[in-house]
Amino acid sequence: MKKFINLPSDTVYECALGFAAAHAGLVALNEEPLFIRRREPSRAKVALISGGGSGHEPLHIGFVGTGMLDAACPGQVFTSPTPDQMLAAAKAVGGEAGVLFIVKNYAGDVLNFQMAMDMMTTEFASVLVNDDVSMDSAAHTAGRRGLAGTVVVEKIVGAAAERGDGLAACKRMADRVNSRTASIGVALTSCTVPEAGVPTFEIGHGEMEIGVGIHGEPGRRRAAVQPAAAIVEELLPPILKDIGAKAGDEVLLFVNGLGGTPLMELYLLYRDAADQLSKAGLQVARSLVGNYTTSLETAGASLTVTLLDAELAALWDAPVLTPALRW
Amino acid sequence: MKKFINLPSDTVYECALGFAAAHAGLVALNEEPLFIRRREPSRAKVALISGGGSGHEPLHIGFVGTGMLDAACPGQVFTSPTPDQMLAAAKAVGGEAGVLFIVKNYAGDVLNFQMAMDMMTTEFASVLVNDDVSMDSAAHTAGRRGLAGTVVVEKIVGAAAERGDGLAACKRMADRVNSRTASIGVALTSCTVPEAGVPTFEIGHGEMEIGVGIHGEPGRRRAAVQPAAAIVEELLPPILKDIGAKAGDEVLLFVNGLGGTPLMELYLLYRDAADQLSKAGLQVARSLVGNYTTSLETAGASLTVTLLDAELAALWDAPVLTPALRW
Repeated sequence: MKKFINLPSDTVYECALGFAAAHAGLVALNEEPLFIRRREPSRAKVALISGGGSGHEPLHIGFVGTGMLDAACPGQVFTSPTPDQMLAAAKAVGGEAGVLFIVKNYAGDVLNFQMAMDMMTTEFASVLVNDDVSMDSAAHTAGRRGLAGTVVVEKIVGAAAERGDGLAACKRMADRVNSRTASIGVALTSCTVPEAGVPTFEIGHGEMEIGVGIHGEPGRRRAAVQPAAAIVEELLPPILKDIGAKAGDEVLLFVNGLGGTPLMELYLLYRDAADQLSKAGLQVARSLVGNYTTSLETAGASLTVTLLDAELAALWDAPVLTPALRW
Repeated sequence: MKKFINLPSDTVYECALGFAAAHAGLVALNEEPLFIRRREPSRAKVALISGGGSGHEPLHIGFVGTGMLDAACPGQVFTSPTPDQMLAAAKAVGGEAGVLFIVKNYAGDVLNFQMAMDMMTTEFASVLVNDDVSMDSAAHTAGRRGLAGTVVVEKIVGAAAERGDGLAACKRMADRVNSRTASIGVALTSCTVPEAGVPTFEIGHGEMEIGVGIHGEPGRRRAAVQPAAAIVEELLPPILKDIGAKAGDEVLLFVNGLGGTPLMELYLLYRDAADQLSKAGLQVARSLVGNYTTSLETAGASLTVTLLDAELAALWDAPVLTPALRW
């Protein structure tokens, strides 16, 4: 394992210190328990709080700021944060409009956020993000995973909260965006968790994992690496089927890097995906390309498509000012 | 080699198509010869044109837009663009205020930009960016390389051009920023050029290359991987010596990823570097952390420090609206 770290056990904390210092104009760090919050929380609006294991940066800490999250709680690498983090974050940024927790659908996250919610004494709601369509069946008891679609939920609901939508409306919007968003990932290499020191999974020189999770979870199949256009041809149909996209619909196309794939390849995937969506009669009305929901240094990418409507497009376009996303 | 590509020889072109489509609101693509330009060039100002081998994205194409470049000419991977690209870009975006070419100091780039300049029939000037301080001596005939400091030059001079500085003033500003900026890189792994198909260099499991170039060129020494803080302790002194930074000075600290290193590690490096600068009495007044000048999927990073003054800080802060940098 070769990484730019000091003590492996200090990695998350030292990253948080660096992040907060580099973006001191936008965010502030609470060290104990650990969370990142907006520098100047707006207590008049619904507070959006997310969190999850570290190693997916910029998710979630990079999306704290005007128009997106109010606070983010980083756990250890690939490990859920603990309820005290969510509760302290809720106390720091929540006001009378209440708190919406944005939770990716992983057992540890669900459990810890639920424990936090059980202890909340002020108004709250939550949304479970589960955009991963790599699993066809309901046989997986944990259900569909949360992938890069989380960024879309955080951006659009962040804009809704910023314009003054109430807690129930934000919750409805979050569920709506989640139900209209689907993703699937593909990995070419494994990552290595600093405290583990060895690759999370083995993968052959010529192999790819289709449907991989953002912690290196197995996908739907292991296959020989194909040309980019052929990979996209395999990934898009289950996505489009899931969101019920049909000719004439406007979509957001989001090509997300898992951390170790050059931007050049992400743009190449974007081109293939945009071409294929266009041939299916869909209109790519909005785009995002880059490393936004990563899996440490995994070489890989995921495709996310959100079925837009006029309101979702307007909320996507609304101003955002965070360390990782701004327009 | 596992990459998201189709025909290796089409990679740069397909990336450019995807890039231009994903950022159609900001940029436009000229296919033959290949360059990216602002969607709506402002011919009243000095036009800034850069370019270089591909594989360093978002450099340079990601910095085309208001407040930075007017056009960028991508060559094949790690290969200089050709003079016809620079000349066509100059014709497309240049006006009476003239063209400033921003050239990284590599033999191929210098040669091809010089050939283009020899054929220019309108006003122009050029700046050679050579921020790499990994080589102590003047023994290397090609001189110091251009690294991530190029981003700083493009941002600050872009702001100067945008406010209406003339060609001579932009050229002076570019030389000034370059002389006040120093960088050094470190790689943990090699990248693989798509058309080559094999790693650019060999490096052992526990080794790092200190002073690596952005094409995998050898650095000042090969060493066993150290903790992040120790690596930063080796990188910073030659940088600070080069720019003559002393206690009380304000600096920009830029931690740049080479493509395959997680953001978590870049923020950790930032924290160590900011700490050490602070202990040296310097004030980290501006910060940038992320993958801005990459070397395909190389795991590695570079540190860049720019010695600021009030004018440089104000130009750094000036609004910028490009695919890869915006505030």
